[in-house]
Amino acid sequence: MHVTIAHAEAAIEAARKKAVELKTQMCIAVVDSGANLKAFYRMDDAWVGSIDISIKKAKTALFFGMPTGAIGQLSQPGGSLFGIEHSNDGLITFPGGLPIVDEEGVLVGAIGVSGSAVENDNAVAQAGVAVLGVSELPEHPWRT
Amino acid sequence: MHVTIAHAEAAIEAARKKAVELKTQMCIAVVDSGANLKAFYRMDDAWVGSIDISIKKAKTALFFGMPTGAIGQLSQPGGSLFGIEHSNDGLITFPGGLPIVDEEGVLVGAIGVSGSAVENDNAVAQAGVAVLGVSELPEHPWRT
Amino acid sequence: MHVTIAHAEAAIEAARKKAVELKTQMCIAVVDSGANLKAFYRMDDAWVGSIDISIKKAKTALFFGMPTGAIGQLSQPGGSLFGIEHSNDGLITFPGGLPIVDEEGVLVGAIGVSGSAVENDNAVAQAGVAVLGVSELPEHPWRT
Amino acid sequence: MHVTIAHAEAAIEAARKKAVELKTQMCIAVVDSGANLKAFYRMDDAWVGSIDISIKKAKTALFFGMPTGAIGQLSQPGGSLFGIEHSNDGLITFPGGLPIVDEEGVLVGAIGVSGSAVENDNAVAQAGVAVLGVSELPEHPWRT
Repeated sequence: MHVTIAHAEAAIEAARKKAVELKTQMCIAVVDSGANLKAFYRMDDAWVGSIDISIKKAKTALFFGMPTGAIGQLSQPGGSLFGIEHSNDGLITFPGGLPIVDEEGVLVGAIGVSGSAVENDNAVAQAGVAVLGVSELPEHPWRT
Repeated sequence: MHVTIAHAEAAIEAARKKAVELKTQMCIAVVDSGANLKAFYRMDDAWVGSIDISIKKAKTALFFGMPTGAIGQLSQPGGSLFGIEHSNDGLITFPGGLPIVDEEGVLVGAIGVSGSAVENDNAVAQAGVAVLGVSELPEHPWRT
Repeated sequence: MHVTIAHAEAAIEAARKKAVELKTQMCIAVVDSGANLKAFYRMDDAWVGSIDISIKKAKTALFFGMPTGAIGQLSQPGGSLFGIEHSNDGLITFPGGLPIVDEEGVLVGAIGVSGSAVENDNAVAQAGVAVLGVSELPEHPWRT
Repeated sequence: MHVTIAHAEAAIEAARKKAVELKTQMCIAVVDSGANLKAFYRMDDAWVGSIDISIKKAKTALFFGMPTGAIGQLSQPGGSLFGIEHSNDGLITFPGGLPIVDEEGVLVGAIGVSGSAVENDNAVAQAGVAVLGVSELPEHPWRT
């Protein structure tokens, strides 16, 4: 199941409002359940380097059905997933990427946000997810 | 000078309307004057392969300040730019990418469209450009 | 909608039987509706170079919802899609890749075959598709 | 010497059964002694990001004739192989990839598994190897 463009646009609009509220300039990306880009929005004066980071955060969250920050906690030196960032043409594993799970528990896409401190990035991503569903997947096996 | 997000959104909305009018499903990308992605919109059921093509068309048009199709006429076998597609991580040189030039003759960005026959792609791109300016640059040296 | 592994395995088994019947050694790849690899099978003594070609054929067919050979007819020098192979990390646009469309007209995945003359590649791909559905999409808008 | 497709399929089937027993959804990849993909199987609802990881684990185990986790112990900060993941288009050096060594001590291929905690990934990989041989190579010089 793929997120629709109407849903992706609604998530971006909610994320954008949160970014304005936080007085930040963000890049916001939404991917579908195949990790393919659905919509992207770069606020004026957002970091150019955040374009790729926001897209990679969205893909990373979709790839593993979990917040990017959760992966980052496991990929530190000595951690069980150390070096996972080398896969899939490059992952971003700090906060700001969240799965989008619909009301039936299906992973329909993910959102990635970059442009400020990671706490802000994550808050903006959460604002985007909140209009569509949740970020927590049911116990595996979940569905795509 | 870079296209603003407000302008990019206006171009995408005009392009989207044209795509609906043509009964097509398009991917629409806008890049700024640095060839960096500003906004992206994938209509539901558009070809997945068009995501990358629309972005590459926008970048190609920006890279050289001319319609992608104009480059393609020079990149045919025996042509003066044969093989140019191998540069810049891959160009797309058939129609559907257009520069966005503002009223002062400044190249502020470019739009790329993919999802149907190239004539339709180009018509949708032109609809997007029309709300912001033109596609023709003044004689070189033009400004960015 | 994604092809299931049971369906992917059935397609590969039918393709494999056809390959044996033709006395060929093939690589057979199946991707889901997000163009992500679902299953892959390399017969003994198949060309090593066919691994990547079969996967790229499957992705190409999925990307555009049409047989790879149909794209190749448009991507010749002078054709409307000349140079499209430079997109999406490399396309393969000669025969051997086919969409998999289920009984409801939904593009659920694609199959790619490489290892012999392209006529044989295509025949093996068709044998794989035949157990799951068809390769022809309904008129656009079709669904993914 | 290369693993045969019959052997690769047997390893995948044994690995799949172990994955079901563990109530996990895995991606399972087998490469030959040239580190080229021989067979791949993605269980329904396995992480999309595990496709690439499972293949990279198999390649990594084959590249060096040792379990991926053994390399990861040496590639930590300060370790003798720090940063080795940057080679070979990206390695994965946490557990889940194992060499396949036949009864004559020849490295015939490798298996890579991804989709759960690394302990589960490794257990599933071991189940796959067990039907074909062992994971321990004789003292160097061993044969391929």
